[in-house]
Amino acid sequence: MPQLRVALAQVNSTVGDVSGNARLTVAWVRKAREAGAHVVVFPEMSLTGYPVEDLSLRETFAQASRQAVDALARELAEAGCGDVLAYVGYLDQDEVGPRDAAAALYGGEVVARQYKHHLPNYGVFDEHRWFKAGQTLDVVRLHGLDIGMVICEDIWQEGGPVSALGEAGVDLVVSPNASPYERSKDDIRLPLVARRAAEAKAPLVYTNLVGGQDDLVFDGDSILVGADGILLGRAPQFTEHLLVVDLDLPGGGHAAEGEFHGLRVRRRVLGTEPVPAYEPGPEAPISEPLSDEAEVWNALVIGLRDYVQKNGFSSVIFGFSGGIDSAVTAALAVDALGPENVHGVSMPSKYSSEHSRSDAAELARRLGCHLRVEPVADMVDVYVKQLNLAGTGLAEENIQARTRGMLLMALSNLEGHLVLATGNKTELAVGYSTIYGDAVGGFAPIKDVFKTHVWALARWRNAEAEKRDETPPIPENSITKPPSAELRPGQLDTDSLPDYLLLDDILDDYVEGDRGYEDLIAAGFDAETIDRVIRMVDRAEYKRRQYPIGTKITFKAFGRDRRLPITNAWREGAQR
Amino acid sequence: MPQLRVALAQVNSTVGDVSGNARLTVAWVRKAREAGAHVVVFPEMSLTGYPVEDLSLRETFAQASRQAVDALARELAEAGCGDVLAYVGYLDQDEVGPRDAAAALYGGEVVARQYKHHLPNYGVFDEHRWFKAGQTLDVVRLHGLDIGMVICEDIWQEGGPVSALGEAGVDLVVSPNASPYERSKDDIRLPLVARRAAEAKAPLVYTNLVGGQDDLVFDGDSILVGADGILLGRAPQFTEHLLVVDLDLPGGGHAAEGEFHGLRVRRRVLGTEPVPAYEPGPEAPISEPLSDEAEVWNALVIGLRDYVQKNGFSSVIFGFSGGIDSAVTAALAVDALGPENVHGVSMPSKYSSEHSRSDAAELARRLGCHLRVEPVADMVDVYVKQLNLAGTGLAEENIQARTRGMLLMALSNLEGHLVLATGNKTELAVGYSTIYGDAVGGFAPIKDVFKTHVWALARWRNAEAEKRDETPPIPENSITKPPSAELRPGQLDTDSLPDYLLLDDILDDYVEGDRGYEDLIAAGFDAETIDRVIRMVDRAEYKRRQYPIGTKITFKAFGRDRRLPITNAWREGAQR
Repeated sequence: MPQLRVALAQVNSTVGDVSGNARLTVAWVRKAREAGAHVVVFPEMSLTGYPVEDLSLRETFAQASRQAVDALARELAEAGCGDVLAYVGYLDQDEVGPRDAAAALYGGEVVARQYKHHLPNYGVFDEHRWFKAGQTLDVVRLHGLDIGMVICEDIWQEGGPVSALGEAGVDLVVSPNASPYERSKDDIRLPLVARRAAEAKAPLVYTNLVGGQDDLVFDGDSILVGADGILLGRAPQFTEHLLVVDLDLPGGGHAAEGEFHGLRVRRRVLGTEPVPAYEPGPEAPISEPLSDEAEVWNALVIGLRDYVQKNGFSSVIFGFSGGIDSAVTAALAVDALGPENVHGVSMPSKYSSEHSRSDAAELARRLGCHLRVEPVADMVDVYVKQLNLAGTGLAEENIQARTRGMLLMALSNLEGHLVLATGNKTELAVGYSTIYGDAVGGFAPIKDVFKTHVWALARWRNAEAEKRDETPPIPENSITKPPSAELRPGQLDTDSLPDYLLLDDILDDYVEGDRGYEDLIAAGFDAETIDRVIRMVDRAEYKRRQYPIGTKITFKAFGRDRRLPITNAWREGAQR
Repeated sequence: MPQLRVALAQVNSTVGDVSGNARLTVAWVRKAREAGAHVVVFPEMSLTGYPVEDLSLRETFAQASRQAVDALARELAEAGCGDVLAYVGYLDQDEVGPRDAAAALYGGEVVARQYKHHLPNYGVFDEHRWFKAGQTLDVVRLHGLDIGMVICEDIWQEGGPVSALGEAGVDLVVSPNASPYERSKDDIRLPLVARRAAEAKAPLVYTNLVGGQDDLVFDGDSILVGADGILLGRAPQFTEHLLVVDLDLPGGGHAAEGEFHGLRVRRRVLGTEPVPAYEPGPEAPISEPLSDEAEVWNALVIGLRDYVQKNGFSSVIFGFSGGIDSAVTAALAVDALGPENVHGVSMPSKYSSEHSRSDAAELARRLGCHLRVEPVADMVDVYVKQLNLAGTGLAEENIQARTRGMLLMALSNLEGHLVLATGNKTELAVGYSTIYGDAVGGFAPIKDVFKTHVWALARWRNAEAEKRDETPPIPENSITKPPSAELRPGQLDTDSLPDYLLLDDILDDYVEGDRGYEDLIAAGFDAETIDRVIRMVDRAEYKRRQYPIGTKITFKAFGRDRRLPITNAWREGAQR
């Protein structure tokens, strides 16, 4: 049976860095060739990064991308890699408009180009805005084997382009992807790819992007599935990886040209000689998917690291309050950037408890990161006196939070660290934060993590450390003490909010599930609590709009995933 | 020739306020009936407001909208208006998904429903996300006349639904619209509607929404054009209005059912008796479109007023720096809300010039609004001493701006005014503002106005006042003095930025036109300035993300109109 060695280049591209991504591509094709691969498949838009958003509409960017893909074909040949068939993703543009494209490079030239057919326009995706859909399928015959390609969303379509390839007849389907991480998504991908392989009647190569881009993180998890649906190789999540798989293909080049499912199939012959028989390499690794908590932790670490580094920063600074949110943020930051790049600031006010200071100090000690103490009493005093804020409640409380925000920004201006906001998703949902206060920052690592989940992550990370005989990074007291903003004496979060277990349960239905009042009643919550929570969520929209971005890990993250008007008189349940 | 009196109800709906909008509809149908109208046409999604954004995906909201349209039909009949054919826009939902719909109400029931066919997904529109497209056209025969309808974007399509109606044969086409204002757009609408009327071979009724919704403002400018392209009536811009027009229609009910241009045309007969001959009313008014500056000024006033009032505020507060931006913002705010609802705060630091204080005082005097003085020296001092900021440049400068932001927020917390940010588009483009400082606010009225345009508006508004023998609101000195942030001694904007005339010219090409480096060179700008400006614009994306929303007046406003990644290594011209 004809043999073929296929490599999946699970790389971390940078949006907009066309020349850097091209250099990365050359390096990885070289690696693939050294590993003896005949075909190497990069992720969707690997040459431009993904998503490029409205850069897709910029003529000069599209031109640069088109030129880069042509130049890349030549460079690969010059680098002695012209005999490897390399699939790279890029931005194309023709008379119809911009295209989410993939090109097959071989022998110094672009031997096939194909445009994505199905353009997702839900969730975080605006692809009907960014691209025009393709209508053709380009099959190339290499070593007597017919190889078809489909891009990302195209494999999510039953009876779509993959089905057309199946009917035309191909020996292998390759698929460049950029599929953002969200919890439990990998449970969906494998059966999906297996179904499509069956539809194609051929093995399917699924290469996914890895790395962070603004609020998205791509987890890799590239897979290769046989025509029979059996998993033949799986790359680890959250790291760059070259997955090499040896295939035996029944093969023999039987692809037909013409119309299939309304799509035009074209074919180009590169070579008909089978690969000379060779000894297959060791079986490809099948990486175990990470546990749910490990997956989330890694997503948050990579999302933070790539945001910091791809934006030219090396260090971060934020408030160490002694609470759980800043403790988890600190542990993430140390995992992402190393302790020497993490700067904690303890900013006690007159309402700060003794434990808030000692827990902050203990956190820094465990992590080995920097900590300085900057009391805010003097600053707060000037405002309180000049504006007569004593006893005014909210106005006085907010002054403390905002003084801290200003202080962090001043230190950032002085020393060049990126400021992190430490708010969690629950807080952001109900507006339990001070805009221009604790909401200050360039990035918010845990903004998509519900409060109860923050605690679970803390426990998990500590347990991991114990397994490895390391010091658990998060002080036990930060996990167990009742949460408080400490903006007035004896204040507790539960003074203003329902219990977090209950609150997160409601938010899961209202925010993630987009459920209405009646559904929440049916789910067993009481009417008054539902009303209260819904009103808090609706009224906090203006705060969320000005909040920094942060890594999406859930089905529906605040931001481009959930687009609601600020001016919005709709109140769930007010009609009853 | 059969007669028909048609009313265009150019109303200001509120997003989400289904019951309030239903009451508004009843009141306006009543007015139309009192004016003798046989048909009344409301704007697109008049019952839900527009755009509802992701509320379209909320089941409960779609249900409420569907129920409201049915109830409205009954209420209109009960109110004695059952004999008026009323077209209202609403959100529908069927097994396919949510629909941007319009219903014809008559005799106590919904006699026709139609879904929008063409869903815009560019600029500020995400309609492929929010709706599914319709495939049918519903014609009703009233008084022996066949009336077809098309929704908004459908009339922008050559050979689209209007053409199908033309071939099926109709006597009149009605079109509910929600077309956001941008400069010079009305120059496009009239010829477009005229072309479509020719295609329909029938008069076309174009009713547009009026009022502000977050960053959009709808200008009204509803029009009725005859089959021959002649303008028969035009409503004034930026105000609610009932435009009543008498038509003589060659008529006679000749619409065919069936497939036209791939769309299914259905017909329902409500009545075949012509309207008894009546004496036509006075000719409908043809309002003159406003001058460019008047249009922009009105858009900014309405955008601000509706944001404030629809969000439950009545008053605003912001810094009076003595400069042109805060002066224009103040004049707008007084025009929008009245002087008693405008609270200026002069916040001098040690670098503030004498004229900055006197110009601020003069502004308040001319406008008759509130002004208080809150020096920031004591607050700034505490930070500067505690953090040793003296002589640190940016860190020290930002402290002043941020102290002012905190002060405004504290006064807002105390007194309940909405804080306005006074930044202009030029500043926002190049990042010449302090995040959490002068960028603080819930709304930014002039964020889409370039600096040179701010000056032009100031001159125009003063000239208008003079024409009306009123005091020009803006102190001459604020217009003529060289702009300065006054964050260090003798500072001028031109220390950090190119001359504003040149800068706005480049920004117009780079931001509005999405042009690249080579185009800018070809336009005659020098390479160094282009580089400098492009870098400033690209690097300021993170600041723009956290900036408050404000009224869109240009082709491409910052915000949902221009979606670029923060993490973005693409640099125009760096490839050369």
